[in-house]
Amino acid sequence: MKQFHWPVRVYYEDTDAGGVVYYANYLKFMERARTEWLRDLGYEQDTLISQGIVFAVRRVSIDYIQPARFNQMLDVVTTVTAVGPASVTFKQEIVHESTHLAEAAVKLACLDVKKFRPQKMPDSLFKEIKGYINVG
Amino acid sequence: MKQFHWPVRVYYEDTDAGGVVYYANYLKFMERARTEWLRDLGYEQDTLISQGIVFAVRRVSIDYIQPARFNQMLDVVTTVTAVGPASVTFKQEIVHESTHLAEAAVKLACLDVKKFRPQKMPDSLFKEIKGYINVG
Amino acid sequence: MKQFHWPVRVYYEDTDAGGVVYYANYLKFMERARTEWLRDLGYEQDTLISQGIVFAVRRVSIDYIQPARFNQMLDVVTTVTAVGPASVTFKQEIVHESTHLAEAAVKLACLDVKKFRPQKMPDSLFKEIKGYINVG
Amino acid sequence: MKQFHWPVRVYYEDTDAGGVVYYANYLKFMERARTEWLRDLGYEQDTLISQGIVFAVRRVSIDYIQPARFNQMLDVVTTVTAVGPASVTFKQEIVHESTHLAEAAVKLACLDVKKFRPQKMPDSLFKEIKGYINVG
Repeated sequence: MKQFHWPVRVYYEDTDAGGVVYYANYLKFMERARTEWLRDLGYEQDTLISQGIVFAVRRVSIDYIQPARFNQMLDVVTTVTAVGPASVTFKQEIVHESTHLAEAAVKLACLDVKKFRPQKMPDSLFKEIKGYINVG
Repeated sequence: MKQFHWPVRVYYEDTDAGGVVYYANYLKFMERARTEWLRDLGYEQDTLISQGIVFAVRRVSIDYIQPARFNQMLDVVTTVTAVGPASVTFKQEIVHESTHLAEAAVKLACLDVKKFRPQKMPDSLFKEIKGYINVG
Repeated sequence: MKQFHWPVRVYYEDTDAGGVVYYANYLKFMERARTEWLRDLGYEQDTLISQGIVFAVRRVSIDYIQPARFNQMLDVVTTVTAVGPASVTFKQEIVHESTHLAEAAVKLACLDVKKFRPQKMPDSLFKEIKGYINVG
Repeated sequence: MKQFHWPVRVYYEDTDAGGVVYYANYLKFMERARTEWLRDLGYEQDTLISQGIVFAVRRVSIDYIQPARFNQMLDVVTTVTAVGPASVTFKQEIVHESTHLAEAAVKLACLDVKKFRPQKMPDSLFKEIKGYINVG
């Protein structure tokens, strides 16, 4: 499976009084990685929005295995597991020096930016993502 | 099923450029509600920590149904669906004026605050939570 | 000087690995208090926005005196120190059990929601705020 | 004056319903830049903490000039304006394609990690910072 790697440094803002990354913040890291994956495919989200298209998260299932800590450099490993005309599903892992810290399945819906109703993604993007999956 | 209600106001800090609550921030609202539920049972987390006990999130599965918006007053509805010697599982819903916006299953583990290893919760708390489930 | 009090509970989301409230998050607490102050005067920000008016922060000067900690109940004490046709200036303090933790001067500008250019606030609001200052 | 540049991409997490970066989040960008500046000097904050030393923000004065927007690549420009045995003061600017968006003066105190009392920074670090200022 083709993998997209995105490095994330843990700063104070990401941690909580337990000394570890706050559980909601892993979702921020994962969205940064999806944004950069899309950019890497050649698609900028602000351009998509100006074309009336926005991706919204529909479902997240995340397992927290071990905590990430202040100042660590993490690797967000993203693979695409499914794509439909108006949805994409990812597997995303947070890894620190080959230790798996968290693993998530994330499903996005492609929406009309005004009505927030499902809408087909651009054909070129759909093909691009299908190609991305099949390379694996 | 016994329900715990916790009101949450949506401020600017919670929203994103899409005009809706940022997807990771629902997890913040849910943790506030769990903290207040625990307080309502008579347990303060800083006291538990000083006794060497901390609750950590092990797993979250969340469905985003409809977006919450700036300035809305939300109701976080929490029920306990299972309790073990070292874990508690919740169902948590985000509701706005009887519309369900999000729904999650959240599993917490009870850990030793230093080693981050599973440890039994205090007996009194275990009984309290069991009682809470059975009332329903 | 007339004071507006707004209680804020410190949750995990607000703290960092130093065990205290992360320095940027005091600004969130202060904005919540300003929002509630405005609501208390009878003005909802989403209504103002639909009328083409938004308040934006122009300047913040904040002194961090002592740290706030997890689970503390804070009091955000807000006073208005000046008002102009298109600006309001506040003094905001974060207090925990009569200990001053932080103190800020915050200047807001009233802007046109589309062009982000200064614009006069509604006359009724301007008078309301003037009255608020003079009560003291 | 010697300048340290740190790039920051604006993600959804950073923005609010006004379509711009939320005002508290500029402080996150500035802390990332200070952390990387310190790393660039050869000092890791987790190592300093293990030596009993932590930097805490004492004062921030920030002017918001123009808003930063979703997906922009920002440059956080950091200069050191003063250093004392137990304090450092920075000037930090947020720049987008040569437009100044925000400008801040930030004063840090060097503290004992346990008592949160002022304490001298390591001599080597003090000299390093003095050298950094004088290069300009």
